[in-house]
Amino acid sequence: MQLTGFFPAPFTPFDNNGKVNPSLIPAYADHLKKDGVAGVFVGGTTGEGLLLSVRERKEMAAAWIAEQDNTFQVIIHVGASSIEDAKELARHAASISATGISTMAPLFLKPQSVSALIDFCAKVAEEAPDLPFYYYHIPQVTAVDFMMVDFLEQVGDRIPNFAGLKYSGTDIMDVLLCAEFNAPKRDIIYGQDEKLLAGLVFGLQGAIGSTYNYMTPHYLDLVKAFESGDLKKARKMQADSATLVRAMNRYGGGIRVGKRIMKEIGLDCGGLRSPGETIPEKEWAEFLESEDMKELRDLLKI
Amino acid sequence: MQLTGFFPAPFTPFDNNGKVNPSLIPAYADHLKKDGVAGVFVGGTTGEGLLLSVRERKEMAAAWIAEQDNTFQVIIHVGASSIEDAKELARHAASISATGISTMAPLFLKPQSVSALIDFCAKVAEEAPDLPFYYYHIPQVTAVDFMMVDFLEQVGDRIPNFAGLKYSGTDIMDVLLCAEFNAPKRDIIYGQDEKLLAGLVFGLQGAIGSTYNYMTPHYLDLVKAFESGDLKKARKMQADSATLVRAMNRYGGGIRVGKRIMKEIGLDCGGLRSPGETIPEKEWAEFLESEDMKELRDLLKI
Amino acid sequence: MQLTGFFPAPFTPFDNNGKVNPSLIPAYADHLKKDGVAGVFVGGTTGEGLLLSVRERKEMAAAWIAEQDNTFQVIIHVGASSIEDAKELARHAASISATGISTMAPLFLKPQSVSALIDFCAKVAEEAPDLPFYYYHIPQVTAVDFMMVDFLEQVGDRIPNFAGLKYSGTDIMDVLLCAEFNAPKRDIIYGQDEKLLAGLVFGLQGAIGSTYNYMTPHYLDLVKAFESGDLKKARKMQADSATLVRAMNRYGGGIRVGKRIMKEIGLDCGGLRSPGETIPEKEWAEFLESEDMKELRDLLKI
Amino acid sequence: MQLTGFFPAPFTPFDNNGKVNPSLIPAYADHLKKDGVAGVFVGGTTGEGLLLSVRERKEMAAAWIAEQDNTFQVIIHVGASSIEDAKELARHAASISATGISTMAPLFLKPQSVSALIDFCAKVAEEAPDLPFYYYHIPQVTAVDFMMVDFLEQVGDRIPNFAGLKYSGTDIMDVLLCAEFNAPKRDIIYGQDEKLLAGLVFGLQGAIGSTYNYMTPHYLDLVKAFESGDLKKARKMQADSATLVRAMNRYGGGIRVGKRIMKEIGLDCGGLRSPGETIPEKEWAEFLESEDMKELRDLLKI
Repeated sequence: MQLTGFFPAPFTPFDNNGKVNPSLIPAYADHLKKDGVAGVFVGGTTGEGLLLSVRERKEMAAAWIAEQDNTFQVIIHVGASSIEDAKELARHAASISATGISTMAPLFLKPQSVSALIDFCAKVAEEAPDLPFYYYHIPQVTAVDFMMVDFLEQVGDRIPNFAGLKYSGTDIMDVLLCAEFNAPKRDIIYGQDEKLLAGLVFGLQGAIGSTYNYMTPHYLDLVKAFESGDLKKARKMQADSATLVRAMNRYGGGIRVGKRIMKEIGLDCGGLRSPGETIPEKEWAEFLESEDMKELRDLLKI
Repeated sequence: MQLTGFFPAPFTPFDNNGKVNPSLIPAYADHLKKDGVAGVFVGGTTGEGLLLSVRERKEMAAAWIAEQDNTFQVIIHVGASSIEDAKELARHAASISATGISTMAPLFLKPQSVSALIDFCAKVAEEAPDLPFYYYHIPQVTAVDFMMVDFLEQVGDRIPNFAGLKYSGTDIMDVLLCAEFNAPKRDIIYGQDEKLLAGLVFGLQGAIGSTYNYMTPHYLDLVKAFESGDLKKARKMQADSATLVRAMNRYGGGIRVGKRIMKEIGLDCGGLRSPGETIPEKEWAEFLESEDMKELRDLLKI
Repeated sequence: MQLTGFFPAPFTPFDNNGKVNPSLIPAYADHLKKDGVAGVFVGGTTGEGLLLSVRERKEMAAAWIAEQDNTFQVIIHVGASSIEDAKELARHAASISATGISTMAPLFLKPQSVSALIDFCAKVAEEAPDLPFYYYHIPQVTAVDFMMVDFLEQVGDRIPNFAGLKYSGTDIMDVLLCAEFNAPKRDIIYGQDEKLLAGLVFGLQGAIGSTYNYMTPHYLDLVKAFESGDLKKARKMQADSATLVRAMNRYGGGIRVGKRIMKEIGLDCGGLRSPGETIPEKEWAEFLESEDMKELRDLLKI
Repeated sequence: MQLTGFFPAPFTPFDNNGKVNPSLIPAYADHLKKDGVAGVFVGGTTGEGLLLSVRERKEMAAAWIAEQDNTFQVIIHVGASSIEDAKELARHAASISATGISTMAPLFLKPQSVSALIDFCAKVAEEAPDLPFYYYHIPQVTAVDFMMVDFLEQVGDRIPNFAGLKYSGTDIMDVLLCAEFNAPKRDIIYGQDEKLLAGLVFGLQGAIGSTYNYMTPHYLDLVKAFESGDLKKARKMQADSATLVRAMNRYGGGIRVGKRIMKEIGLDCGGLRSPGETIPEKEWAEFLESEDMKELRDLLKI
């Protein structure tokens, strides 16, 4: 298989009592489908995945799978601190026929070698042997920071259903080495929305990220500009994306601000689960009025 | 309440199939009681706590509680990536009448302020309102690295059952400030075995750690030497402990080597759960033969 | 002014007694000119700049200035731990009519704010008021890691001769924001050879780096491939560069291995100055025989 | 030799034009001698050493040497980014008959192994072969963070005049291992004023630091309390020191605030050299009025 196109990492909606709210998913999926996405990556970082219990994660996974169809692929993130939880989630994803599964590196007592990491992944992947497995590289969250080209070199056939990487790290030399690694059947899916253009020039064809929840059309145009050779336009569009990310970072980052954006566009995902802190309305107002956002509000239609 | 004395952080025994093995606990507890410990701290870092599922953690907690008595206090670590899991474990600890509970900072989407951390702790602590609650400060594992004196200053009455800190961080200026903080009913329990003497001189009276699993008598003598003013002896005994820790660090650290030591003294805790890697016998043999261990083998009686 | 094209950061040649050896510079410059470079960036990281005394740095600067002409521009790095040294080197660069000057952030008692950094730069720059001044951003060396778009926003007219950035950091979102920042007269010169293609797609037109010492023709072809739309070829050429950098990193990095490469191509720059350690011939042989280098030796003509 | 007692690390006085002001040194030395210090450590971190040119450093070194006598020992820090500068400063220190010399690890292109660091030190030390040489371990400044017990194990006779360590790192396990290392003639001089009590319990007998500039009598009493077994008093006195350091850290640290304290006690050392930023009077007033300082102003007599 090959994953191409945009895969938003959906926010997890919570209701007023802080319970997961799967009832929002049909409308959420409709919105994304209209925007032209290729699918979703459920329960990762943006989805506050590991802040949910295993039961809650299954519930959300099932809600998204209910929206899955030929043009809307659903990848389930099953990573967990405990490999037992990850394996249980992998089995569940298989039982509901997800498009694929993925896991980030374990966060507690981290793997001390690439081999230990591959071993962990292999044990999780073999619980869903018929689904493509993606390793989710996000060292800024996990602090597990091996070069992924080393992972590709060492994985061999240790994970029979290995399908590629969700690459959310910042080392673009490693991105390039992975992309050029001699194994064409493996996807390198880029996880840095604000640098997508670098991914494109390195030949990546799929992207997973947070801002695709509300501005995929912008990125589709960016890709079009890149492909037609209009780099000036592509750069400007990418700079808009980077400026947004920078502005959000000043207000607590893409989950904190992003969930509030979702509410604004009519998909109320509620607040953040502890230890996250929901953005107060006062800060949101400041964010909207900030210099950088003046031009970008049109883009976000807020 | 006040926790004083030594609280080993027990290893979690696994059987040959990698399943938790609570059947070892009675013998394990007997060993520790003979060594003169004051209790145990179950399911923390040494216990590979977050590598277990919630169900497994409850099973191990219950096994240790079965050994609890007036002179053997059992504190249950309930920290988890998901606050839902932590709350469930806190309720369970209350239901089995643990001596106290504790949580480390959440590992995924970390708290961005001391206040967010206290909020997280408060929500967990209120699930076991009649048990003393200890915050477990271990920034080298969690990468949540606030000064604990800030925590003490800000916690006020936000956690009614707040009882103190398990302090496993390395900032001994902060240790001192916490110890001298004007709130005598709060315990600062020291979590750095190899530096115990610094804790003693700062007035700490309780200790939780990994090496207390197999060498509490050594530390009891160290305390005796300190209290009798024989600093020369106390330093030498502490240096032995530090030399052991240094030697273990060369072979993968105190869990990897420590579990093998337990086997040697007749309490087979099995290997490490993934992503941990069990020490191969060849490396263990090298460790035993290493220069530093020559003198220390007597101490460990191995 | 605008700096475009390739600017190798030359190695500093040492003789057998460890003294700087300016007598090599004429041949060195001839080699670079034949390779099609636009100039050189003297006395930076590759040049082991701050390992030299002020007197030695002046001597090397003068030797390179002697080779300066209309098609070979010489930028002098004047950064130093002491601002007094940096100012003295700036005055010297002005006195010998360098093309421009640059400074990295001070390494000792680092600036605590962008404003303090700009203040430092302003004081250095005003010693050579008629030369364009470039700030050299290399956080992996200096551990001074502000976003450069913040620098651009705040610099205003505080440095009248400010001309742009030598950007050797790894944050390509920041690179993009700098490149798109509304100040066209400021150069963003890219300092990450192994990621040049990312710089090109973001519109950068100049590059300073270590591997341009011996493979500028390769990069000129890469640029040609990029500009003609042959991204497949450009990626392959960039991957070759990245593979080389990765291989060198396994043997101590681009200065340690690079100096040995220079010897191989007939420009003996000697060993590394302490605390650097010259690569032993045995390691060099291993490097040459390593898997990655098989294909790349042709490229380097070694 | 053996260095015992307190060695303030003096601030470097600057005049209104930012020039070094050696004329203050006689009064400065008188103040310190009255306070009961054993000597000074000149031109290290507190002294903004590497912010000065070589010429300025020699000038300040000579000014302090003029105050040297049997009860006031002067150690000169000669560390520099360039080993040539460090060697020149070492020769100068020898020529003016300093008590000893010391160097921190080089800050630019750092040593990649303990052996490379020892090699660097050996080359510097041999320029002053008749003076005791101390390695100055301060990883928070240099980011060179080897365990010092490794240094002691490997140094052997590679530095014939090696005399010990100025230990300003935070790893007190390493402090203990160094203190207990089997080489009694080597001093471990402690560089963490706010944790002195930990140093004392580990048997250290000398201390170098910043707060000894203005509160040595307090620390002399602390030592007395420790030695007489009054740990309660010693802890309280140490906590006062730690509280002061914490308060200073909130206002930019011990150099920024410390220089202002010196002015208050009648020894005007001027402001900070760039990239440092002198504390504005408004911030100083806030500092003095802050909660923590209420009790401590008496201690500082300000």
